[in-house]
Amino acid sequence: MVHIETVTLNDKYVKGFVENEELAALQSFVEVAHKNMHTKTAIGSDYLGWLDWPSKMDDAELTRIEEAAQKIRETANVLVVIGIGGSYLGTKAVNELLGSSFGFNQTEIIYAGQNISGKYMEELLTYIKGKNVALNVISKSGTTTEPAIAFRMLRTWMYETYGEEAKERIFATTDKTGGALRKNVDANGYTSFEIPGDVGGRYSVLTAVGLLPLAVAGVDIRALLKGAEQAEQELQSVDLSSNAAYAYAAYRQILNSRGFSVEVLASFEPSMSAFHEWWKQLFGESEGKQGKGIFPASVIYSTDLHSMGQYMQNGRRMLFETMLRFTEDQQQTQIPFDENDEDGLNYLTDKTLHEVNMQALEATALAHVEGGVPVITLDVGKIDAHHVGYLIYFFMKSCAMSAYLSGVNPFDQPGVELYKQNMFELLGKPGYEKKE
Amino acid sequence: MVHIETVTLNDKYVKGFVENEELAALQSFVEVAHKNMHTKTAIGSDYLGWLDWPSKMDDAELTRIEEAAQKIRETANVLVVIGIGGSYLGTKAVNELLGSSFGFNQTEIIYAGQNISGKYMEELLTYIKGKNVALNVISKSGTTTEPAIAFRMLRTWMYETYGEEAKERIFATTDKTGGALRKNVDANGYTSFEIPGDVGGRYSVLTAVGLLPLAVAGVDIRALLKGAEQAEQELQSVDLSSNAAYAYAAYRQILNSRGFSVEVLASFEPSMSAFHEWWKQLFGESEGKQGKGIFPASVIYSTDLHSMGQYMQNGRRMLFETMLRFTEDQQQTQIPFDENDEDGLNYLTDKTLHEVNMQALEATALAHVEGGVPVITLDVGKIDAHHVGYLIYFFMKSCAMSAYLSGVNPFDQPGVELYKQNMFELLGKPGYEKKE
Repeated sequence: MVHIETVTLNDKYVKGFVENEELAALQSFVEVAHKNMHTKTAIGSDYLGWLDWPSKMDDAELTRIEEAAQKIRETANVLVVIGIGGSYLGTKAVNELLGSSFGFNQTEIIYAGQNISGKYMEELLTYIKGKNVALNVISKSGTTTEPAIAFRMLRTWMYETYGEEAKERIFATTDKTGGALRKNVDANGYTSFEIPGDVGGRYSVLTAVGLLPLAVAGVDIRALLKGAEQAEQELQSVDLSSNAAYAYAAYRQILNSRGFSVEVLASFEPSMSAFHEWWKQLFGESEGKQGKGIFPASVIYSTDLHSMGQYMQNGRRMLFETMLRFTEDQQQTQIPFDENDEDGLNYLTDKTLHEVNMQALEATALAHVEGGVPVITLDVGKIDAHHVGYLIYFFMKSCAMSAYLSGVNPFDQPGVELYKQNMFELLGKPGYEKKE
Repeated sequence: MVHIETVTLNDKYVKGFVENEELAALQSFVEVAHKNMHTKTAIGSDYLGWLDWPSKMDDAELTRIEEAAQKIRETANVLVVIGIGGSYLGTKAVNELLGSSFGFNQTEIIYAGQNISGKYMEELLTYIKGKNVALNVISKSGTTTEPAIAFRMLRTWMYETYGEEAKERIFATTDKTGGALRKNVDANGYTSFEIPGDVGGRYSVLTAVGLLPLAVAGVDIRALLKGAEQAEQELQSVDLSSNAAYAYAAYRQILNSRGFSVEVLASFEPSMSAFHEWWKQLFGESEGKQGKGIFPASVIYSTDLHSMGQYMQNGRRMLFETMLRFTEDQQQTQIPFDENDEDGLNYLTDKTLHEVNMQALEATALAHVEGGVPVITLDVGKIDAHHVGYLIYFFMKSCAMSAYLSGVNPFDQPGVELYKQNMFELLGKPGYEKKE
């Protein structure tokens, strides 16, 4: 048994803002919420499929995903992933974190159907022209407006470009039996994968939704799942002093109740940028209801110390910060000596960038605490598929607990219907004609 | 005289949250702040150089920038821009908005010195290997830690790769006379450009800071400046009913005083993403001080209606939204007819994506207002250099006015020193040894 560092919550920079009694007071509520979640008697229990997904995922299905991915890698140099919200944010998060900031592995992943911009679509069509393209369309229903429009346009392009061979290049991830996309799959014989009925969009990255495109991108999806499975096993304790995911949830709710109503997730790694967007959906959509919820925001440091740093230090005091640190120095890139030392940096000679970056984190946490901002730090061992899988599950479980503690259903999103109804009315969709 | 649509503020979705008397009450303060700003007697007046910069920028200097850019375009396929905060956010904003989401014009612009990530630096060094590279290092002092480290490393790489020819490939944008980078320039004979002493980082995109890399990227920098110059001329009125920039500032402060303390800038164009980051620095760093300031956040719609939409509609009510719309349909990309209509989208046949996108904006504004979120809309004619130049100046002038109305100096950033001092202590920088 190899000891690996996964996720550690450090609360030394939050202790000054929270009394021990407050944590103790939440302990019994955590126990109740935990029991209701694990016995599937909590509100929203129809969507708790993610809870034991890492350990229960079917191995044969995983192999089928890997085989499809291998086929795509061999035949296409671009995979267009069509999806919106939970259907692409997790994929983008993991792919950008584990991939390079410049260039890509073998088959490039690009995204469509996540907006309705004509500019974006024209640029995408220009870009894929002459390239070897495959599509992965991801939608439970197949009628969500943005991906449906993109799929209609790109499907047309695929048939124009490849004729009947297009059918071999289109992969669908959708509901097992129902919905417009399933019908389309059955009629055309596309290879398809299933979105489990009991897993909502924002909790779905570890299903075929994320696994197929991630495998195409070259991510070790078995390691990703193994990391999540380790989290599934380790994060079963109800004790706030030993379950970091629940402790994170508890601190969030205590801070929120004290008026810290904006959480800023801060990473010191620029490739975390898309992960932040996944995290924002997870927490914002799970908790932002009934006039409640912590507003999720994010920064990349030290980058944004030179833009949002002033606000964080001295702005309106309603913020708390969660700083995420990858502890292992995976590059060992050193700062060279310079004879002239005009920049005055010789005191850093032979230090690695990682060492400087970690001191920047410590320095920032100290400064912000002094400025009245509670800081929670989350230490993650390193950037690899296993740790990222762990971290994903960690946040999903924290989020569910945090939402339960605040008294809301973590798995619904009733507020997203109104703009859609308005839009269908304005666009004259049959059945949504303007009410008088 | 050609009439062009530039920026129009529409307040119909904010009227229900604000009394006319509140705007009227601010009118006289706006007049005073305007007068103090234009006579350079306001607080922070040493940094008002941006105010008449578009009309006063030296034409010979502009030509020199264009010539250097032309030389870079001819000799390099990658330009590495080294800078942090205001030294690169404006460039990235304009380049991503006017460029393509996929691929690039002729010479690719990549960024360094905006973080201390070893992963990022290693990936960058791998990426540029074998490519034809030029550097543009941008720093007023030359001792800001992040860009100084990156410049030290990349300068070393350049000399190793190109020998003495490296000197022809390094371009510096820095203070006219002082600072470590100016010394370095003088010692090595790099081509250099000036950062005006009376223009702060977040107001500097229209100086050589932004203009050189943007010209390399293929942006029409004369049109950009012309647009800003038009804004400079048009946004001189003190009347809140005719100066949209001041009206925006006034509405922000009224909403803030009513408890709407988070502003979410929402664009319906994914290529606005980097522009949002520029905007966040501008407003966050200008206003977030003395325990005050509106927290600046941003979303891309309709993308983020599927992630942050739930929170916006039903979450904690402390938000207002500023929606930015480009009104002209520049692509005319139509949604095709589909015989089978399994996706049920035939009701959209022959509509352009832009039309659907604009209805999505309208639908979202209506829904969010109903959900208790005031919405300001800013209409911009179209996406081109002229309009973007106008928009940049619009926001700079709004921001200065808004900060003055809230009683703070728009041009300082006293809060960014503490973490630096902590960091220098932790890193053992000479002169910053740990205090006992």
